[in-house]
Amino acid sequence: MGEFELLARMRGQLPCLGPRVVLGSGDDAAISVPGGATVTSVDALVEGVHFRREHTSLAQIGHKALATALSDLAAMGAEPGEAYVALGIPDDLDEQGCLELLDGMAALASESRASLAGGDLSRAPDLFIAVTVVGHAPTPEAFVTRAGARPGDSLVLTGDLGAAAAGLALLENPPLETDFAFIDAIGGKKAKSALVGRQLEPSPRLGAGRALAAAGATAMIDLSDGLGGDARHIAAASGVALRIEAAALPIAEEVAAIAEATGREPLELAVGGGEDYELLAAIPAERVGEAADAVRRAEGCALTRIGEVLAGSDVEVRLPDGRILEPAGFDQLA
Amino acid sequence: MGEFELLARMRGQLPCLGPRVVLGSGDDAAISVPGGATVTSVDALVEGVHFRREHTSLAQIGHKALATALSDLAAMGAEPGEAYVALGIPDDLDEQGCLELLDGMAALASESRASLAGGDLSRAPDLFIAVTVVGHAPTPEAFVTRAGARPGDSLVLTGDLGAAAAGLALLENPPLETDFAFIDAIGGKKAKSALVGRQLEPSPRLGAGRALAAAGATAMIDLSDGLGGDARHIAAASGVALRIEAAALPIAEEVAAIAEATGREPLELAVGGGEDYELLAAIPAERVGEAADAVRRAEGCALTRIGEVLAGSDVEVRLPDGRILEPAGFDQLA
Repeated sequence: MGEFELLARMRGQLPCLGPRVVLGSGDDAAISVPGGATVTSVDALVEGVHFRREHTSLAQIGHKALATALSDLAAMGAEPGEAYVALGIPDDLDEQGCLELLDGMAALASESRASLAGGDLSRAPDLFIAVTVVGHAPTPEAFVTRAGARPGDSLVLTGDLGAAAAGLALLENPPLETDFAFIDAIGGKKAKSALVGRQLEPSPRLGAGRALAAAGATAMIDLSDGLGGDARHIAAASGVALRIEAAALPIAEEVAAIAEATGREPLELAVGGGEDYELLAAIPAERVGEAADAVRRAEGCALTRIGEVLAGSDVEVRLPDGRILEPAGFDQLA
Repeated sequence: MGEFELLARMRGQLPCLGPRVVLGSGDDAAISVPGGATVTSVDALVEGVHFRREHTSLAQIGHKALATALSDLAAMGAEPGEAYVALGIPDDLDEQGCLELLDGMAALASESRASLAGGDLSRAPDLFIAVTVVGHAPTPEAFVTRAGARPGDSLVLTGDLGAAAAGLALLENPPLETDFAFIDAIGGKKAKSALVGRQLEPSPRLGAGRALAAAGATAMIDLSDGLGGDARHIAAASGVALRIEAAALPIAEEVAAIAEATGREPLELAVGGGEDYELLAAIPAERVGEAADAVRRAEGCALTRIGEVLAGSDVEVRLPDGRILEPAGFDQLA
């Protein structure tokens, strides 16, 4: 398989290049005119570490590789721009397979208004996909880092928690996938597919991220590691403490049934599982309502107040019975 | 090994961030203010495909991963800016090893005035390094693509050919490495180390690339695949033919001895070996002298006129005896 021939075929399938891209894939480098300020993030998915081909179609792998990278742009409140892809191709992945993987990436790029502007193909012992994404805003101050949370801010969360971990639990328990009583309990086959989709094809919350930035978010992060660890990144970068109300956490409704079937605690799936790619943000308390409206308009999902920012450091959790676990309270739950 | 702890340690070692970087590694994404136009290129090095750890130190692997990416910026005539690194780390590479690899990258970044502005670490079955580099110029027109060569232009080449292939031949023939008579024949131990260095630690011709762009280069490419294949990329992208004079090719002086010792033709090592990372450019004939002066000042290396651009397509080679091999003449030599 010639790298250049394959790149050329791939190029034929790529979505239209964005307004900033002057020259796309095929020369020594792509040319663009960014204007304003940019954010850049790189993420890699590796076979056997982040995915298994027996669980996942190649299109889903391509989707997820781009989605996890775009999620970092969402967490900065950036407008998605260009993506550059390094693909390591094992011997058992043929040209058709590479194109399927690219299809998954191209579909999400189109939907997200991102451009696949360049790439590199290598032989590799195992499949990997490293994606570099560039996002845009008029000025660097328009981006939301992890570092600006202030005591008194509210802590808000998009969407819900635990669906990705529940989807993974389903994939790893094949008997559950064919247990009709269980499937009824979680809301039927469609709900089951949706859960698995939350694990295999996460949606980066790009619209919500820009809405939160516009509504004055002071700090923001996407939940890739799990609420506990990611909240601690905000606390450490901002030099504040976060108090999370366990009772306020929006846990996806199917999580309880899956936790029961797999012998785990719902809260463990919700806060420890990670990969939900929801956004956690600090925002001035008086702007939470405006932010929730904007997130609903932009993304069609809820924004829930799950706690507040305090002076101090680390993350504490208030349980429904009023007990406070501290610091790093989630470690005691998991 | 915690990804974030290691990233933080790495961050302590990184060269100063460049003038465009507002926020480096450690948040969801790095923030920069590019100004003007950018070029972006991604390149991956994979263990067992592009390098073997028994031939190469980890610092050299880091150096080469960044060098091959920066070479693409050189070929665009860009000022080097930011580099973003995705590292796949196998179980047998410990934290000290990762830092050695990063040291090699950081040293070249410092020397090249590039910033290591972000990164991602993953577990992986085999070591890989995917590097995305961003280069800059005031306007997109200032970059030199592969597509502007015009009939009548001269074809010029920086430095010399074959040293990287000769270095590889040395590495792959351990008996030669300890054959004193042979080492004398190629100019002594220092010359031997220099040849191996051309293979393991190539220097991106960043100064020469900018000098050639400023001197009016109409098309440019870096020699990663070998002169034959890379020349054909210019011919195809520009819609022209290239005639290369075999007698004019600047072949590194040690190549003849190594070709003899390994039973190969010097021209084969010089044109087929690849990885020299010299720049091949088309340039108006009347500006070759000015370009050569500028390249010598910027990079301390020669610029040699090796042929010309003609109407037509593909690449032909004129041998010293006057015979012309065509088209894609290098295939007949190799």
